Amino acid sequence: MEALKARILAEGRDLGSGILKVDSFINHQVDVVLMKQCGEELARRFADVHVTKVLTVEISGIAPAIMTALALGVPVVYARKTKPITMPDLLYLATAPSHTKGQTVDLMISPEYLRKGDRVLIIDDFLASGQTILALVRLLRAAGAIVVGVGTVVEKTFEGGRDVLKDIGVPIESLAIIKAMKDGVITFAD
Amino acid sequence: MEALKARILAEGRDLGSGILKVDSFINHQVDVVLMKQCGEELARRFADVHVTKVLTVEISGIAPAIMTALALGVPVVYARKTKPITMPDLLYLATAPSHTKGQTVDLMISPEYLRKGDRVLIIDDFLASGQTILALVRLLRAAGAIVVGVGTVVEKTFEGGRDVLKDIGVPIESLAIIKAMKDGVITFAD
Repeated sequence: MEALKARILAEGRDLGSGILKVDSFINHQVDVVLMKQCGEELARRFADVHVTKVLTVEISGIAPAIMTALALGVPVVYARKTKPITMPDLLYLATAPSHTKGQTVDLMISPEYLRKGDRVLIIDDFLASGQTILALVRLLRAAGAIVVGVGTVVEKTFEGGRDVLKDIGVPIESLAIIKAMKDGVITFAD
Repeated sequence: MEALKARILAEGRDLGSGILKVDSFINHQVDVVLMKQCGEELARRFADVHVTKVLTVEISGIAPAIMTALALGVPVVYARKTKPITMPDLLYLATAPSHTKGQTVDLMISPEYLRKGDRVLIIDDFLASGQTILALVRLLRAAGAIVVGVGTVVEKTFEGGRDVLKDIGVPIESLAIIKAMKDGVITFAD
């Protein structure tokens, strides 16, 4: 997606250790117009897989997931990392290693909003190691839901997430695919 | 907003102690169509105050803030509760007592995205005690930004937030105003 890639080149910052800072338009400040375009493009790429629900993870996944769900006309569920008092004690919980926090995070979904037969598109801001998305897939399968695709805004191929997710056997789409970041230079795959 | 109030009556649950569970369409699962209507209505109510930025707090404020910002054509900033590695060490931080967590939370905003003269509309899912919003106002004033309004999806008048925020001197708008929850019965103010 050219508008996104241009924005990454203009405002993205390589902080080293594979960390891409895109806080000015995705992760702290959100450019809602660009994000809407991202959601529409992700929806277009998954138009044929009959999505009934979009699943993401708090926090930074929420914006792209909402825009994708809006374009698809389906609800969003966001997995929680801490249990709110409104969540029932019987819940789906998977643990994933956190790429940026250097520890593990819990991902929790209430069985109220994840049903057998749901056709779920997983959306997140980044595809990096793939571990968070893999944990979501485990939750979906535990619930008897069907994973129909994985879509992310930015993919960093050098962190191997696409290989990790290969066995799931669903289409994986990313709007900007970064193959290298070195000395502050961001290089896209295409 | 009638569609929202009807949905609260149909699916909202009074969990006692002033806690309203609306996880099926606002706080865990999001009805993006209803949320878009909420954002458009909030944008309409603040159409004349020349908003340049919408500010909210992760996590549940993000969805209504994004939809409001989309309708207004301005960016969103969401205050972080934990510091990501992409955030600079020099930052705005205010502490607020957490209504639902029974402790305090830190609210952090990078100075990169909050500038002197910004005309900021604060959007959140709930107006309850008003303490989180008050903390955001402190951050905005520290940055020299101008608070032009406060908009929330659901207000619980019995928690006193509107009085707490009165001295800010800006319009406060809520789309569903609940004056009482007792024995599972939710009563709106109008």
